[in-house]
Amino acid sequence: MRRICVDMDEVMADLLTEHLRQYNQHFEEELTPEDLVGKGLWVAAPDDRQLQLRAFLDAEGFFEDLPVMPNAQEVLKDLSERFEIFIATSAMVVPNSLGSKYRWLRRHFSFIPPSHYVFCGDKSILRADYLIDDQPRNLLAFEGQGLLYSAPHNLMLTEFVRVNNWLDVARYFESVDPAA
Amino acid sequence: MRRICVDMDEVMADLLTEHLRQYNQHFEEELTPEDLVGKGLWVAAPDDRQLQLRAFLDAEGFFEDLPVMPNAQEVLKDLSERFEIFIATSAMVVPNSLGSKYRWLRRHFSFIPPSHYVFCGDKSILRADYLIDDQPRNLLAFEGQGLLYSAPHNLMLTEFVRVNNWLDVARYFESVDPAA
Repeated sequence: MRRICVDMDEVMADLLTEHLRQYNQHFEEELTPEDLVGKGLWVAAPDDRQLQLRAFLDAEGFFEDLPVMPNAQEVLKDLSERFEIFIATSAMVVPNSLGSKYRWLRRHFSFIPPSHYVFCGDKSILRADYLIDDQPRNLLAFEGQGLLYSAPHNLMLTEFVRVNNWLDVARYFESVDPAA
Repeated sequence: MRRICVDMDEVMADLLTEHLRQYNQHFEEELTPEDLVGKGLWVAAPDDRQLQLRAFLDAEGFFEDLPVMPNAQEVLKDLSERFEIFIATSAMVVPNSLGSKYRWLRRHFSFIPPSHYVFCGDKSILRADYLIDDQPRNLLAFEGQGLLYSAPHNLMLTEFVRVNNWLDVARYFESVDPAA
């Protein structure tokens, strides 16, 4: 059975909406996702706000209550009947998030067993056929077929197979033979 | 550069000594590692003590202060100059251990970057050339060359390449070409 690895932040969990909400509130700004096209919040924010941007993520509970991306649950549930699904998240850059990420996955994706969670850093470690990820560097490190999940920061890139949302993911795998 | 994955519990960290100490103290027993040959503590303990055995592991901080296995630091430091070293631990069975394991690795193996930590379950997900692990099921799931790190529970097994301690690990890799 073919194996699909799925990134969490910006693919399963809508991290940007919450990060941006906290940023706008703290700095009294009104940035929108459209303002972040081609760069993302880290690049859009001035240098003297980087530490605070990071502090939002490090705060206890930030990762606990992130919204689920639209259609992620139904599509992954369907895919899990035809493919082996693993969750592969770069959790080590925010070690405070480890417990929260585990609980978030149990709560929202209870059909994926914890034995299929991979909290890692360098995604070249993954032995899988597909990786769905919003970070180009992760797709470049990965040895299988990468699918770039659209996020404002990556919208200008043209060198990857792109999926814009979970319905796109479903369509992509409709024509893939799970046993091939 | 060839890549070696290293299990934590019973390979880098001496979990058994602490688990056994707590077991003996709680149940007023005097079990020794020799009593566990071919079975391990889980099999040696009666059914009505399994929940308590598990409770020791779930307790906050159990994984925080485990002793480092003899020579693990020096040998891994040397190996990390010739090979890519990743830490691959089945952390998902004890989710409380996630933060403790991260901090333990930072404290005792600071030369291995967190991007090379893999907190996982099913070790078939690892893309690596070697896996050093005390659990036969992990070596069987792994697609590269497995090395069985000796622990009381696995001493009767003959079907794996065995390393008895970290000096044995060093000797094994002396003759391995890191680039091959």
